[in-house]
Amino acid sequence: MSEIPERQEVVELAKRRGYLYPSFEIYGGVSGFWDYGPLGTSLKNAIVGSWRDMYVVRHGYEEIETTTIGKEDVYEASGHADGFSDALASCPECGTFFRADHLVEDHTDIENADGMPKERLAEILADEGVPCPSCGATLDNARVEEFNLMFETNIGPGTARKGYLRPETAQGIFVDFQRLKRYYRESLPFGVTQVGRAYRNEINPRQGIVRLREFQQAELEYFKRPDDEIDVSPVEDVEVRLYPVEEQEDDDGEPFVTTVGEAVEDGVIESETIAYFVGRSQEWYESIGIDPDRLRFRQHLPDERAHYASDCWDGETLTTFGWIEVNGIADRADYDLRKHAEYSGEEMGVWQEYDEAVVREETVADPDMSVLGPEFGGAAGGIADALREKARDEPEAFEGDEVSVTVDGEAYTVSTDAAGFERREVRETGENVLPQVIEPSYGLDRIVYSVIEHSYDEDVIDDEERTVLRVPPKVAPFDAAVFPLVSKDGLEEHAREIEEKLRQAGMRVKYDGSGAIGRRYRRHDEIGTPLAVTVDYDTKEDGTVTLRDRDTTDQWRVEKDEIIEEIESVVEGDG
Amino acid sequence: MSEIPERQEVVELAKRRGYLYPSFEIYGGVSGFWDYGPLGTSLKNAIVGSWRDMYVVRHGYEEIETTTIGKEDVYEASGHADGFSDALASCPECGTFFRADHLVEDHTDIENADGMPKERLAEILADEGVPCPSCGATLDNARVEEFNLMFETNIGPGTARKGYLRPETAQGIFVDFQRLKRYYRESLPFGVTQVGRAYRNEINPRQGIVRLREFQQAELEYFKRPDDEIDVSPVEDVEVRLYPVEEQEDDDGEPFVTTVGEAVEDGVIESETIAYFVGRSQEWYESIGIDPDRLRFRQHLPDERAHYASDCWDGETLTTFGWIEVNGIADRADYDLRKHAEYSGEEMGVWQEYDEAVVREETVADPDMSVLGPEFGGAAGGIADALREKARDEPEAFEGDEVSVTVDGEAYTVSTDAAGFERREVRETGENVLPQVIEPSYGLDRIVYSVIEHSYDEDVIDDEERTVLRVPPKVAPFDAAVFPLVSKDGLEEHAREIEEKLRQAGMRVKYDGSGAIGRRYRRHDEIGTPLAVTVDYDTKEDGTVTLRDRDTTDQWRVEKDEIIEEIESVVEGDG
Repeated sequence: MSEIPERQEVVELAKRRGYLYPSFEIYGGVSGFWDYGPLGTSLKNAIVGSWRDMYVVRHGYEEIETTTIGKEDVYEASGHADGFSDALASCPECGTFFRADHLVEDHTDIENADGMPKERLAEILADEGVPCPSCGATLDNARVEEFNLMFETNIGPGTARKGYLRPETAQGIFVDFQRLKRYYRESLPFGVTQVGRAYRNEINPRQGIVRLREFQQAELEYFKRPDDEIDVSPVEDVEVRLYPVEEQEDDDGEPFVTTVGEAVEDGVIESETIAYFVGRSQEWYESIGIDPDRLRFRQHLPDERAHYASDCWDGETLTTFGWIEVNGIADRADYDLRKHAEYSGEEMGVWQEYDEAVVREETVADPDMSVLGPEFGGAAGGIADALREKARDEPEAFEGDEVSVTVDGEAYTVSTDAAGFERREVRETGENVLPQVIEPSYGLDRIVYSVIEHSYDEDVIDDEERTVLRVPPKVAPFDAAVFPLVSKDGLEEHAREIEEKLRQAGMRVKYDGSGAIGRRYRRHDEIGTPLAVTVDYDTKEDGTVTLRDRDTTDQWRVEKDEIIEEIESVVEGDG
Repeated sequence: MSEIPERQEVVELAKRRGYLYPSFEIYGGVSGFWDYGPLGTSLKNAIVGSWRDMYVVRHGYEEIETTTIGKEDVYEASGHADGFSDALASCPECGTFFRADHLVEDHTDIENADGMPKERLAEILADEGVPCPSCGATLDNARVEEFNLMFETNIGPGTARKGYLRPETAQGIFVDFQRLKRYYRESLPFGVTQVGRAYRNEINPRQGIVRLREFQQAELEYFKRPDDEIDVSPVEDVEVRLYPVEEQEDDDGEPFVTTVGEAVEDGVIESETIAYFVGRSQEWYESIGIDPDRLRFRQHLPDERAHYASDCWDGETLTTFGWIEVNGIADRADYDLRKHAEYSGEEMGVWQEYDEAVVREETVADPDMSVLGPEFGGAAGGIADALREKARDEPEAFEGDEVSVTVDGEAYTVSTDAAGFERREVRETGENVLPQVIEPSYGLDRIVYSVIEHSYDEDVIDDEERTVLRVPPKVAPFDAAVFPLVSKDGLEEHAREIEEKLRQAGMRVKYDGSGAIGRRYRRHDEIGTPLAVTVDYDTKEDGTVTLRDRDTTDQWRVEKDEIIEEIESVVEGDG
């Protein structure tokens, strides 16, 4: 585990070098919005590529892409229009907005005020004499209300058709589920992925890069029959640090390291499918540069689970912001499909043919109303319903010549003939099953940021301090840098030629001809470029160039024709 | 040129097979919103990948990613808050919204009413007695107003901070330009790209997939000094179909085929840089499956240019919607950077060091106010200003002992001594230059749709009609399909093993075990899968499988170990 850097240094490097830019900086910026500069975009795209390689290519969980603007109905069904909110307090004096739960947490001993009713929060603000952090006025008359966290807009002219910016990419998959189940020819289990932007209109985000109003997700919805479980054996030996509920609730509790296989065997992770995705996530995080010593999987406490989740494990990385959630692996059960079925009236179940048709006996009554009507008058209808129910639930009552039912407290006796009792066989070939959903959902921006922090390192080379970003070559923004030793005597043309050749071979390269060569090495150490290719006077003589390794700073000479091979071996050797 | 298909057939195939889904279909949908299904996403991502390969990897135009929500200031500066609108007419009877210019075009001989003032449109609606297409009421009292096409939202609680969903990805690049020029160490020319979603809140979109409210762009902003031009020689022999303004304005005018080199030589395309990007676009379109016989580049007529463009050439494809714009290559000059410099007060120029410092003579006056004041009283200030101006513009006037200036119609004579006239040398090492911008901007959704239409084909194989999507293998949703001949005798296990091996090699494959083998071939012909791998009884005997080519339907046997190589040769052979 390398030392944890200062946040300021990392953020400064990220901005200066072109990883992350504050959005609309020339107009003063807005908190919760960050852009990716050239290096950040390249790193993020490589991370997305490796995520797709894992889930879409290797697992065959195909990807879809749905719109970011959603029709109101979608979010009424999903529960977000109602339940996706934070408690908003506004200062009656200066009008500044705050999260009421944060104010309470900051000024009292209450550790978790998230989810407290707004009336209770207003009461505490008044009782404790909490002052406005902005103007100092007391907040005893502050209004506290639910503020929905979805960005709202209108589709088309007028305000008749409301739209929301999606709070998660997942809903697009659920809403398209009818098409998707047909695409997979109703054959469970199957997975569907989506990568894209999602939005959360935070009241007053203060945590820089890790609390965004506009962010990027990569989500997998894994649809399964209740009994389907993914076999964990491919990842059973993967070591993971787990922090289950019991350890969190125990004063002496601690996260502990175990293997995925043992976690399932010991019942620490109940769902084998969740355990499988914990293992895959661990492998993937390590491959993209997350420090395993700063990674853990924490189970949600019962009171922090989302409205749709019955169990959830969060991947968390340790950063200068503390432990932050970078992904969640949630059991959403059939919550979303059930809600969309209910709100849309569409069949969301998947037809599951039985291995063998099931024949079962059904007992029914088909009362003869021409008998019941004259005999019981106005009560006949109720008696007929009671007979039908009894035939289903208590068929043995129809064994004699007469059968009795009670309607509105009064007993009636009917001849079994008039009741029309019958036993019959029913042949069932399958049924519509609402799939269960396990959802591994990844927050790409926080993952990118964690990779930058975990890769950040300082060391001393030749008595000189340097900063080096040890990002794994397979996700590094550039495969290689190309330098002419000096900008004269034709070395530039040689270097440009090599640059061009590498580009045409599909490599991401950066030509850099300015400043002393040592300075250029340092610059690319900071950027995280794994290899530097330097063209010098020997290149003109014997056609060799110097390669330099970012991590070890080792240098060696190779023939020009071998550069591509060498770069490939560094990038792939890493995978 | 294959025959142009029926639109209904293409759209049906796209929906049924998983290319394109209407968004929120289970809730009745909303026009202007479409989702990408699994095949559409794969095709689109491959097209984006090949675009990045062209511009980001091979040209080194690095990519950034900025937020889709923009602060109001951004779009006030860019001109979109004011000028990005359509004329909206609402029926006074039923309240339905229409584009006023479309109503006028549909009911009169006027061919292009886009851009007419709203008062004139209202007048025509009244004079011509145009009826409401929805309820039939006359629209003579219909209000016509400007409707801004940006989706609007509020950032944070309250309505104090307005935000817009970006109408183009380009503005993010301009707004971040200060950071970007530093990233490129102020060394022009350089290119910056962005791929992402953009939004246009259409009044009443009726053209299905080609008129979207939420769409995807891939844009390149190429920043250059006024005199920089990209050398067209790498694409000079590329054949393109051009439709310049003169041909459009001539009754007998027609698009014509020429080469990029000739187009520059003949002055058909004035800017060599624009011509270069026309050539690259042509090459790229052909490589992803656009039919060159259904592709042309049309120059914008002066009255259809955007507010920022001084010249523009649109790539257009012929589809069942007619000729549609798929990209634009616009000369935005310094419009955007100038506006952002003006609105933000920030320096957007790029410091351009001269090759050699320039020494030039400057003539100045520094009037002696202790002489002018007593002599001219209240007029002294104006006289001093006039002297300064004259020293700059007419230095020869200071050659004698006296010099005359006119202020407010009155002439004054001052001694050249008191005028403080001086000739001095100024050494300039460089200057801030506002770069010129050439912007090739691509509409990904229309490109994807055009590829599907241009790939769509019907032919007859063994007396049986089939539909086949001839998408180039390098962008096809799958590299290969894997089939067991029958679902018994262990053939499935063999096929699954091959599927797994191909996935681990990074190939996009689809396993398909259901239905007769002929039906599975047809299914994958329709999907556009270039190769099918079939496992049969001989596989168990001698380890060979059957490969089948989508386009020719040729079949041949190869060793299991050679499958990867064969797929690679088909995919790459295509590049």
